[in-house]
Amino acid sequence: MIKVSVLYPNTAGAKFDMDYYLTKHMPMVKQKLGAACKSMAVEEGIAGGGPGAPATYAVMAHLGFDSVDAFQAAFAPHAQAILGDIPNYTHTQPTIQISKTRM
Amino acid sequence: MIKVSVLYPNTAGAKFDMDYYLTKHMPMVKQKLGAACKSMAVEEGIAGGGPGAPATYAVMAHLGFDSVDAFQAAFAPHAQAILGDIPNYTHTQPTIQISKTRM
Repeated sequence: MIKVSVLYPNTAGAKFDMDYYLTKHMPMVKQKLGAACKSMAVEEGIAGGGPGAPATYAVMAHLGFDSVDAFQAAFAPHAQAILGDIPNYTHTQPTIQISKTRM
Repeated sequence: MIKVSVLYPNTAGAKFDMDYYLTKHMPMVKQKLGAACKSMAVEEGIAGGGPGAPATYAVMAHLGFDSVDAFQAAFAPHAQAILGDIPNYTHTQPTIQISKTRM
């Protein structure tokens, strides 16, 4: 199993329309990726590690797939629709990481 | 539900002893945190978002708790044992983030 993590930085003053993201963007992503997407989780940053420290990421999304190939095959045909929707809820640029689940 | 994410940077040349981490560190953390820790996931970074880009994080761990209070109550008595074990598997400094699950 692999995870695709989409990490939106918690930039001071940056807008992030959580309502649009949860009710429009992510359901659209789920529909486009179809059965290849085995799991979908969204977390909203509330704090950093130290006392009073801000969260590094405003939002983290984690999508599970059987393999990198399965992710790429599901994502490529819809990349434009999915990435093109980002400006509708934020002007920040997410960091994307692909990971292998180990535990 | 909240998630505590521990993000180890993928620093060039940095050591990360995955075997120690998976077989010694995380089982110790699980035992110390006890029933307050509702879930535990570990992911190993394999790629970044662009072609040939490295993963931002070598390892990401995500621990689930009912609330921030529940996490702090479980973690505080064992902070020294848990944090003191980090140099046994890496010399990098993890970024820590607390998030609220939204989906």
